[in-house]
Amino acid sequence: MPSIDLNCDLGESFGTYTIGMDEEVIPSITSANIACGYHAGDPIVMSRTVALCKRYGVHAGAHPGFPDLIGFGRRNMASSPAEAKAYVQYQIGALKAFCDSASVPLRHVKPHGALYNMAGKDYALAKAICEGIYSIDRNLILLALSGSEMIRAAADTGLACASEVFADRAYRADGSLVPRGQEGAMIEDEDEAIARVIRMAVERKVTAIDGSDIDLKADSVCVHGDGSKALAFVVRIRAALESAGVTVKAF
Amino acid sequence: MPSIDLNCDLGESFGTYTIGMDEEVIPSITSANIACGYHAGDPIVMSRTVALCKRYGVHAGAHPGFPDLIGFGRRNMASSPAEAKAYVQYQIGALKAFCDSASVPLRHVKPHGALYNMAGKDYALAKAICEGIYSIDRNLILLALSGSEMIRAAADTGLACASEVFADRAYRADGSLVPRGQEGAMIEDEDEAIARVIRMAVERKVTAIDGSDIDLKADSVCVHGDGSKALAFVVRIRAALESAGVTVKAF
Amino acid sequence: MPSIDLNCDLGESFGTYTIGMDEEVIPSITSANIACGYHAGDPIVMSRTVALCKRYGVHAGAHPGFPDLIGFGRRNMASSPAEAKAYVQYQIGALKAFCDSASVPLRHVKPHGALYNMAGKDYALAKAICEGIYSIDRNLILLALSGSEMIRAAADTGLACASEVFADRAYRADGSLVPRGQEGAMIEDEDEAIARVIRMAVERKVTAIDGSDIDLKADSVCVHGDGSKALAFVVRIRAALESAGVTVKAF
Amino acid sequence: MPSIDLNCDLGESFGTYTIGMDEEVIPSITSANIACGYHAGDPIVMSRTVALCKRYGVHAGAHPGFPDLIGFGRRNMASSPAEAKAYVQYQIGALKAFCDSASVPLRHVKPHGALYNMAGKDYALAKAICEGIYSIDRNLILLALSGSEMIRAAADTGLACASEVFADRAYRADGSLVPRGQEGAMIEDEDEAIARVIRMAVERKVTAIDGSDIDLKADSVCVHGDGSKALAFVVRIRAALESAGVTVKAF
Repeated sequence: MPSIDLNCDLGESFGTYTIGMDEEVIPSITSANIACGYHAGDPIVMSRTVALCKRYGVHAGAHPGFPDLIGFGRRNMASSPAEAKAYVQYQIGALKAFCDSASVPLRHVKPHGALYNMAGKDYALAKAICEGIYSIDRNLILLALSGSEMIRAAADTGLACASEVFADRAYRADGSLVPRGQEGAMIEDEDEAIARVIRMAVERKVTAIDGSDIDLKADSVCVHGDGSKALAFVVRIRAALESAGVTVKAF
Repeated sequence: MPSIDLNCDLGESFGTYTIGMDEEVIPSITSANIACGYHAGDPIVMSRTVALCKRYGVHAGAHPGFPDLIGFGRRNMASSPAEAKAYVQYQIGALKAFCDSASVPLRHVKPHGALYNMAGKDYALAKAICEGIYSIDRNLILLALSGSEMIRAAADTGLACASEVFADRAYRADGSLVPRGQEGAMIEDEDEAIARVIRMAVERKVTAIDGSDIDLKADSVCVHGDGSKALAFVVRIRAALESAGVTVKAF
Repeated sequence: MPSIDLNCDLGESFGTYTIGMDEEVIPSITSANIACGYHAGDPIVMSRTVALCKRYGVHAGAHPGFPDLIGFGRRNMASSPAEAKAYVQYQIGALKAFCDSASVPLRHVKPHGALYNMAGKDYALAKAICEGIYSIDRNLILLALSGSEMIRAAADTGLACASEVFADRAYRADGSLVPRGQEGAMIEDEDEAIARVIRMAVERKVTAIDGSDIDLKADSVCVHGDGSKALAFVVRIRAALESAGVTVKAF
Repeated sequence: MPSIDLNCDLGESFGTYTIGMDEEVIPSITSANIACGYHAGDPIVMSRTVALCKRYGVHAGAHPGFPDLIGFGRRNMASSPAEAKAYVQYQIGALKAFCDSASVPLRHVKPHGALYNMAGKDYALAKAICEGIYSIDRNLILLALSGSEMIRAAADTGLACASEVFADRAYRADGSLVPRGQEGAMIEDEDEAIARVIRMAVERKVTAIDGSDIDLKADSVCVHGDGSKALAFVVRIRAALESAGVTVKAF
């Protein structure tokens, strides 16, 4: 029976600043990517988010990013592979402390934002990140863009990985995402988005922007909890997946 | 046979900024308190410092501080116990990642600067810190001021602890340090400082500023590696301790 | 004819993080205290907030705080007077750049949070802050707690100042605020709060918590824009002041 | 009579961390680029560095960089032009506060590190930076790489600029620097470096790496104060310039 994971970035609040409707979205997801204090999140928020994962039985993962709070980790930074590795180790370790404290297993690591995007295309960066993850716990699972350099680097490192797909993004014939800003990059229609995800889960296929059918590994769908519209979509996609006979469960 | 540990703060460099003569001092010490990125240190420095500990067989400990890089963690900050606990968990976890990566056991935790001083006098803060440490690994050892609230809180938490003494500081009859700035607070004469440490190690006694002899638990002496004079003193005190029949080894 | 200023903290958003309903509250206030990047705010937010002040003819002021983004500048930090002075100079200068760029005069400075509270009671800290302000532009006006050490230090420095009162706080017979947490510290009833402010504006008097009538200098009332309830209160108090014949205008 | 300026980055210390021999190098230079707290420097250091400029009659300039203390502003960050403009405004304003306080005129702005390099090649970024500078004080002078996009953007903005040359770097026939890492990029021989600078100052010409003679605008030479070797070179180059009849003075 086909199954898929729903992952969502949580724990992005910082001090007095709140982002995301973590308490509302968590009942609908199966994996949480928890910010680790570099691009978002702080120790109090991390502790609280790990407790939320425990309460809802959601798998906890680290979501390390660049040290760029002002840019929310979304801006490319020319970090060396050694720096990226050390940043990832630092952040995973920090989150793991809260997981250990709460007896919540740390399951996976999903790089955030610009680090995710850069490592998806840069093998040396991806390899360094994978080695950083592996060095802490070789049972951690990398969650990364389906077909990316990160998936390749994880395999080379001996790290298990889960392939992430996007409901609202178009794919090119080579399996890469159509870059934001290009025509047709976003799947605006929610019904179409959901239908695509179901097909990815069941058939492991999606229609690329050129009309061709491509194979796609789809272990997890990225969903968002940063607004009531996003929240409604999570509820809808989960129900639609279950109606279509797809089990929603963590990878 | 009496023994004592020599502990030193290491890994306080940050990015392009260098503090401390880590490579020079490490052969003479037995425990390293490694900065964790809040008041000093960064992921690259932490990784390098853990590697140094491994090379020299020096025990690695976490040295968590307040999030005050500009003030080097030396300024009191009105953190709540919950905040202090979370800060300590975060930083220990971050350092533990580098220890795990290098197969170096993380042995102890010594709070830094203002956090050390505040928690030494504030039981609620000390207790929160001890609970943070215990929550991550109950075999970690707290290194804290002899006779302080931290030592008391560690006992109440079930956390092993090591009592720290200072070679260059005068003590009051109640075992507390004479505050810096008060007359006689500093032991300026090196020979006297060393003689006092030897007596603390052998007899577990020291002469207080009022002339009385007091009992003092002395598991570890704090030494410094931030200059050639400090470095020379470490070499001297180690030799003097060994000559006096005191084994220099980690607690 | 009596007049009073309504001041509000604005520009507290940071990067992706939003705090405050700046656009909604600004039409009702006369002075804006703009965060300067230490406890809140960032360059883009500062630029935008100065533009808002220009559009609505609201007086722009700097709102410098401690370098404690994670604690929103609300935690006491043991800064020396020299540090506090330099922090204030830095932040005022940074904001002034955006004011100069937009041809908006920088009118006042109101220290934020813990800096405001600490300097209100510590003359040396207050004096250093006043000297920092004066050194940049001697025509800047200090906005500070009525009757506090800051008001005294401003007078000693030759700096004009405006005395701030609080609608929702009780006063002691000596003119100081009843500390939060003490019974009766907060004026919960909105009608009572407004009546008190009108009396402060018209008669320069308020009833202290012991029932005595005290004189109080009231140049500006602190209002908040961080929620719909706070926003409604600003609209109400402004209307009530105007109905009572009090002109609402900047000091 | 030919003249040239010697500029040096100063004020790069941060909190307890010291970089640079500011007190030693300042007697030999004519313009100081002062770090503004983003990539280096802090308010206390800025205040002290402005005082140094005053004591030695050295022209004070702002040295704004990316908000990347851990990377010392040397790593490319994908900032938008609007962000870069606001960052530069913020930092110039902050430094200007210390200049105003000390009655030291702020003369110039030299972007730092990665911001300097990126803006040297990216006209949109350069233009945004120039507009930021101009918006604060249209009499500020941009100090930037000779022949770069920044020089072009300054001209388009109506901002005066000074062209910077490097003693220890080779040039290509188009006037750009031979990238570090390429063979021949560095002029290793000090005598040759000095002879080249003298020729740039006197003849406004330099021999490019392909052997051709090219015209080069040389208003200022970048020197360093971060070590005794660098310091000795500054003393030497100044003496050599003066011996060759080149007046060393600020642009």
